Amino acid sequence: MVILGCGSATPTLIRGQSAIYLEYAQHKILFDCGEGTQLQFIKYKISPYKIDTILISHLHGDHTNGLPGLLHTFNLTGRKEELKIFGPSGIKELIEQSFKYSGHSLKYPIQIKEPDHHNVILNRISSELNLTSIPLTHRIPCLGYCLDFSEHLQKFKETEFKRSGLPVDSLKNLRKGMELDYGGQNYKHSDFFSASEKRFRFSYFTDTLFLPELAGLIENSDILYHDSTFLNTLLDKARETFHSTASQAASMASLAKAKKLILGHFSSRYRETTEMQTEAERIFKKVLAAYDGMELQLK
Amino acid sequence: MVILGCGSATPTLIRGQSAIYLEYAQHKILFDCGEGTQLQFIKYKISPYKIDTILISHLHGDHTNGLPGLLHTFNLTGRKEELKIFGPSGIKELIEQSFKYSGHSLKYPIQIKEPDHHNVILNRISSELNLTSIPLTHRIPCLGYCLDFSEHLQKFKETEFKRSGLPVDSLKNLRKGMELDYGGQNYKHSDFFSASEKRFRFSYFTDTLFLPELAGLIENSDILYHDSTFLNTLLDKARETFHSTASQAASMASLAKAKKLILGHFSSRYRETTEMQTEAERIFKKVLAAYDGMELQLK
Repeated sequence: MVILGCGSATPTLIRGQSAIYLEYAQHKILFDCGEGTQLQFIKYKISPYKIDTILISHLHGDHTNGLPGLLHTFNLTGRKEELKIFGPSGIKELIEQSFKYSGHSLKYPIQIKEPDHHNVILNRISSELNLTSIPLTHRIPCLGYCLDFSEHLQKFKETEFKRSGLPVDSLKNLRKGMELDYGGQNYKHSDFFSASEKRFRFSYFTDTLFLPELAGLIENSDILYHDSTFLNTLLDKARETFHSTASQAASMASLAKAKKLILGHFSSRYRETTEMQTEAERIFKKVLAAYDGMELQLK
Repeated sequence: MVILGCGSATPTLIRGQSAIYLEYAQHKILFDCGEGTQLQFIKYKISPYKIDTILISHLHGDHTNGLPGLLHTFNLTGRKEELKIFGPSGIKELIEQSFKYSGHSLKYPIQIKEPDHHNVILNRISSELNLTSIPLTHRIPCLGYCLDFSEHLQKFKETEFKRSGLPVDSLKNLRKGMELDYGGQNYKHSDFFSASEKRFRFSYFTDTLFLPELAGLIENSDILYHDSTFLNTLLDKARETFHSTASQAASMASLAKAKKLILGHFSSRYRETTEMQTEAERIFKKVLAAYDGMELQLK
């Protein structure tokens, strides 16, 4: 997971506009796409070309202005694979318009879904990913996303295999599901492989007021990325502009029993984010303040 | 004049997408506005807030994707002054759409004009600036722009003033147009000030095929900025994609008797532009290959 942009609307050179890239299981996902996102991909040496899903929170420009350019760049580089895009009502028209003006036609399929922003909706993306869209409260319709990955793994029982005395090259066939007779014994796949499932929950909540009533929906998130536009000294400003403070983000992480909280979407008035982190740590210990280029290994 | 971006559609870290900033007389003008233009303003320490006119050549994203963000940033910073925008048919709808999706309302007046892209049209912007829009030939409707500045200056006749023996503080009143009697003589404004006019012509031709038949329209340009997407080795590719080569840009400068040529809109395949410059210099001597951050003092 790489933070490509953790700034808010007013542009700065230290923080790009909203964009987060996440790879897990077979999926490559982009959350929001502010102006300049495709350049952030180049800067941080990540290829955007295999992204399969883009999740847009809402239609403010600092979350969408990079989308027309990125979708067109996919065109230029000969993309053929389908792209899924989720976002609130209007995202489909916005994308279609951007191609209308340029006169370019789309050379790869895009499947655009606009989940109802009044209800919690579960979308099955693949056997490895369930996506829940959650209504947030911002000035315009805005969706939070909770991603449930379940990676199906085959764990190799090394001790049992060694004990059997089977030759190493028999493993290939066993792995495929073939049965083998050896030394008067019959061996099958399940004797040496146990199915296991690795689960990972990532929740993305920005831009939004503090909504404690939604904590249950994102319970036990391994990572919660939450709007932290202001310090708590500007709580009134946060309420007025439908954003959250670092303290509120921390309260949300605590209520949702998250394993880790990442603060982001910082107002340009804050050059440093140490104070953001300190404020949040008073309420929730495992917190990181995002910065552009920040990379996290997801387990 | 500052080159903010001289790249073409495929994004790179060395060249931003199309954007040129020009200050002359009382005007502050932006030509095109590719993705990331507002960040280029910050990077090169230029304030975009006093821009009075934006000229868009055509509606390909690498010339317009920065526009929604920039116009919204003007909103955030409390702009009240009117902004004029010129561009081919569709630019008005594109701008209106971008505000529609974000739910923001515009807090300053924008006057959008869509000059007919089939005809040469003269627009009087102010007493100091005439703007001619010129139909170029690209894949979609595209406008070239020729700007004629005429700055009205008052030249002070220092020798005459000294010879008169008038006290220095009488200058203030003379400058305002008052008449003065001194030593039996009557003095008036025109005795010490002569009106002069400074003219400057800037032409912006991108994206376009080589159009020698238009040279007369931009004759004697002090500066011609011309599409130079390819070297002449890729002349076929230039024709096919409705762009020009460095040689063609130089031929245009020569035919138009330009004083200086700036090559730009380079394909991302060219990391270096020395060869572009060398190729053009064979045809036209006073040529510069643009680079992001390049600054020219206009006289």
